[in-house]
Amino acid sequence: MEDQKVISRLTNLGKEITEDIMLNESPKISLPQRSIGNIHFNEEKNLLELGDKTSTRSFLNVAHSRKFMQTILIATKCKELVSREKTASIRELYYQLKHTIADTKENTFEDQNESDPLIVDLETSLGVLREELHLKADDKGTLIGKLTVEDSGDFIDCSKLGRSGLSIPSIVEHYKFHEFDAEYILVIETGAMFDRLVEEKYHLKNNCIMVSTKGQAARGCRRLVHRLTHELKLPAIMFTDGDPWGYYIYSVMKAGSMALAHESKRLGTPKMQLIGMTMTDIDAYDLEKVTEKLKDVDKKRISELLQYPWFQKKEWKEQLALMSSKGVRIEQQALASKSLEFVAEEYLPTKITKKQLLP
Amino acid sequence: MEDQKVISRLTNLGKEITEDIMLNESPKISLPQRSIGNIHFNEEKNLLELGDKTSTRSFLNVAHSRKFMQTILIATKCKELVSREKTASIRELYYQLKHTIADTKENTFEDQNESDPLIVDLETSLGVLREELHLKADDKGTLIGKLTVEDSGDFIDCSKLGRSGLSIPSIVEHYKFHEFDAEYILVIETGAMFDRLVEEKYHLKNNCIMVSTKGQAARGCRRLVHRLTHELKLPAIMFTDGDPWGYYIYSVMKAGSMALAHESKRLGTPKMQLIGMTMTDIDAYDLEKVTEKLKDVDKKRISELLQYPWFQKKEWKEQLALMSSKGVRIEQQALASKSLEFVAEEYLPTKITKKQLLP
Repeated sequence: MEDQKVISRLTNLGKEITEDIMLNESPKISLPQRSIGNIHFNEEKNLLELGDKTSTRSFLNVAHSRKFMQTILIATKCKELVSREKTASIRELYYQLKHTIADTKENTFEDQNESDPLIVDLETSLGVLREELHLKADDKGTLIGKLTVEDSGDFIDCSKLGRSGLSIPSIVEHYKFHEFDAEYILVIETGAMFDRLVEEKYHLKNNCIMVSTKGQAARGCRRLVHRLTHELKLPAIMFTDGDPWGYYIYSVMKAGSMALAHESKRLGTPKMQLIGMTMTDIDAYDLEKVTEKLKDVDKKRISELLQYPWFQKKEWKEQLALMSSKGVRIEQQALASKSLEFVAEEYLPTKITKKQLLP
Repeated sequence: MEDQKVISRLTNLGKEITEDIMLNESPKISLPQRSIGNIHFNEEKNLLELGDKTSTRSFLNVAHSRKFMQTILIATKCKELVSREKTASIRELYYQLKHTIADTKENTFEDQNESDPLIVDLETSLGVLREELHLKADDKGTLIGKLTVEDSGDFIDCSKLGRSGLSIPSIVEHYKFHEFDAEYILVIETGAMFDRLVEEKYHLKNNCIMVSTKGQAARGCRRLVHRLTHELKLPAIMFTDGDPWGYYIYSVMKAGSMALAHESKRLGTPKMQLIGMTMTDIDAYDLEKVTEKLKDVDKKRISELLQYPWFQKKEWKEQLALMSSKGVRIEQQALASKSLEFVAEEYLPTKITKKQLLP
């Protein structure tokens, strides 16, 4: 979305409130409900979505007035940020707005826990991403491959960054994608496996763009993979550890998360598939020796995943059942027990050729 | 150190063991002790160092023989890695070496906790960095600025990477530094503050190279700052949160850590100085309102820091005493309460011009 459009949505919010005041009515904001009862998994689209339920925040309701005031402060500051072409971290936003209200002992905010959920309110009510409000969260992740990214006037050939790669920032809205030569995007959970594949020149030999999430993916990384997939029209394949934590990281990349259900359609990559590590790999590649016993937290997490609507596909129920019955998990790096090169020369190419991918 | 030299040290270790066997003696390895009693802070060099105490690991001592066997397995694998010009994560090394010993039910390793400390043993006993043994830990951190880095044949102009920057890999031994235009290196604790300074073009306006550690610095990041400082002959300034955790991150970058005392001289940057956040900043810049109360864990950490020999400098004792008496901590991002630009346009340039730096 263009800055101008975001500004106009923020301005409209202000106009509506002014109109309420002019009509001697209590100023109010309508907000989509973000509670679990209003979050649905859209099976057709493979995305978590917010439903239609809304609630109203009203200034002249004592229970709402502090939050109302805070929401307006945040909206005003965001309008300033977008107008000035500046971005701010959500922590900076909090510090920028924290002050004592004149002639009182009341602070606008006491804690960042007060401002963070209101940012989400504003995103959902205006239908804009926080990145479009010029707000950012932490950044994490690395990109490498035959793709030229335009970033703030620089044209960056991501295949000419040695073994280092491009650091993925928290906001990637300003990225423009130019020439590329790739057949798919490979998203990798651990930094160490990304390093391995870079060392083996996997991306060059197999013509793909590689992205490392380094654990649970940051928003910038999710948005980048979403944009790469949609704009370059490339399939995305994810490669995680074979445990409930890795599978959940995958599901967030693919279908979104409950906390950010309103943004799934711009952060998720619903056609993404998972290549491994799968429980079937353990027998197929004789990896029993390098598995690890499930701990109680792992078992608990497995039963949680089995409750989620987006894990109800046959293939996933099979994998999770197999994990429970074997009682083990397996890491990406366990493939090193075959040889360091095995993952790049055998495991990934074979599974991709044979289309052994989970939905 | 060149690969050839590392191989020759590993080969010598093997030769000495063979000689012991030929002489019908128990094969043994001499290792510097790494216990707290053998770690000293060298005030003159401003570095944590290992002392001269050694111990001996002997194959025919029942208490040592498993570890002895494991040490030799690791040394053998490292020689293979260096010879083949491969690198491996310490996790991959573990998986590569884990197997059941023929005709027994005994595994070479049960857990990575068994292999990790032996890697450190090998580093200290051979006097090589683990990176020189082609082993790597996790990577973290970003670099940006007017510097051309040669990485695996690519020449990367780190001032032409938009707002993204170069992802710092876990091993930077292969980096070569070419043209640069910078007066100092600014090392920044938080990713969000790094982003702020990139957005303000601080590195371009103030002619410096910026490195983000993103919390406690990874080894690759520490080694990079060490090399930049020594090879480009540039001073290094660190910018952390004003709390015991930020100050400790600084002290590790500067003087090294107890766990890796044997590597301080190759990972540390002893002439580094700290610009902030200091406790004196709170009054100087009227930031009382945006401080946070110390928690019990913070207070405990302050008293720990006051025990460390490398925090015995007058200036540090003053800062820590002030922190205790004020009972508050302050974050880098609290400077946003003045204005988003304040840190880049006022705070850093003024403090650098006035040389308001802690040792």
